[in-house]
Amino acid sequence: MANFGLWDLRLVNPRDGWPNEKARATASKADHVIERVRVFETLEAAIADLTLVYATTARSRDMRKPVLGPEDACQNLTAHIDQGFQAGLLFGRERWGLNNEEIAISDAIVTLPVEQAFASLNIAQAVLILAYEWRRQSGLSATLPFKEAIGEPAGKDELVGMFEHLEKTLDKSGFFTTPDKRPAMINNLRTMLGRGQFTSQEVRTFRGIISSLDRAHERQRENRVKPIKTE
Amino acid sequence: MANFGLWDLRLVNPRDGWPNEKARATASKADHVIERVRVFETLEAAIADLTLVYATTARSRDMRKPVLGPEDACQNLTAHIDQGFQAGLLFGRERWGLNNEEIAISDAIVTLPVEQAFASLNIAQAVLILAYEWRRQSGLSATLPFKEAIGEPAGKDELVGMFEHLEKTLDKSGFFTTPDKRPAMINNLRTMLGRGQFTSQEVRTFRGIISSLDRAHERQRENRVKPIKTE
Repeated sequence: MANFGLWDLRLVNPRDGWPNEKARATASKADHVIERVRVFETLEAAIADLTLVYATTARSRDMRKPVLGPEDACQNLTAHIDQGFQAGLLFGRERWGLNNEEIAISDAIVTLPVEQAFASLNIAQAVLILAYEWRRQSGLSATLPFKEAIGEPAGKDELVGMFEHLEKTLDKSGFFTTPDKRPAMINNLRTMLGRGQFTSQEVRTFRGIISSLDRAHERQRENRVKPIKTE
Repeated sequence: MANFGLWDLRLVNPRDGWPNEKARATASKADHVIERVRVFETLEAAIADLTLVYATTARSRDMRKPVLGPEDACQNLTAHIDQGFQAGLLFGRERWGLNNEEIAISDAIVTLPVEQAFASLNIAQAVLILAYEWRRQSGLSATLPFKEAIGEPAGKDELVGMFEHLEKTLDKSGFFTTPDKRPAMINNLRTMLGRGQFTSQEVRTFRGIISSLDRAHERQRENRVKPIKTE
């Protein structure tokens, strides 16, 4: 709930009573949710102030009640809340879910788009998916907690300098064996390296790489040339 | 994974070895996933045949690497797969996630749109959300495992019969105190009850209710009348 910004947790007649120290211990610091918990003796009391209640279930019921997936359900819920009304999502017991009486007083059934053969989710998983989808439909998920590290993009002059540096070095090394193909190969190289959208720092790093390989090449040539001299 | 149709699980150097009976026991019958698991000594080996790998992390890194939310990430992944390529989602260790070397060989970072203050999700939760979103972006989530129970919708003749039955009964009971307002009230009643889109069976049930209340009313009137007679 807290991961995706929900905080109003209502419990109906909880098996292990309330407050529950185990619940607090496993709440990963979401104390604001635990502290606000309200306990009710009946479902009717728990939803009395709400005007739209959706019941979650993984089992088909013989009820002429709309069955919604998470997207449609959360779209309706957030629209209802945006209109100034209060809405709730109802989850059943871990062992056997909600009974038909509890679903009958809800407005619709929500179920998850799971594989038929592997439909078993525990209540924490069902809450997680619906909390995520609620946040998505609320538009809150457009903002991620962090962004790509900002790098100062290199100017085209820097990029062209880098390309020419590489191409001059490749001319020396004999990379372009067919002069006819040189212009097309240069276009391909520039396209390939351009896709990386290097920063100024990355252009400097890459030019360092070219120089380093070029010098190694020079040294190699010198080494090859020398023995001939001493012969 | 199995809930949302994923099955290709690859493990890199798992802490507790493999096969792992505890993993099988907690897999809730998703044996096809457990049985297909492949174990690799290095991440590089695990992703060798993939052409797009996204790394999940909840922590900002000082890397100029795209940061995507689940929607964009899974849209790209499914598009890549639709083009006939292979893609993977990389999850880190439960305790401390992925290190920068592991993220560096991935194509982008995926992070969840959580509340800043409550960003802590365990790996199972992160897998669940991304598997759900993957299924959604694959278009597979359009089909829910079950639908609303089908009821034969009542014909308009049945509905009009029901409305007239109710209105005649309300005429008798003195419900319409201001004759001028009768037509507008009838429109409101018909609108109100029409929204329920009753089935034929429900129309019969509702007519039963009207008759029952009408008879009770009749009896009450008889009871009220009698004493006067006997006076």
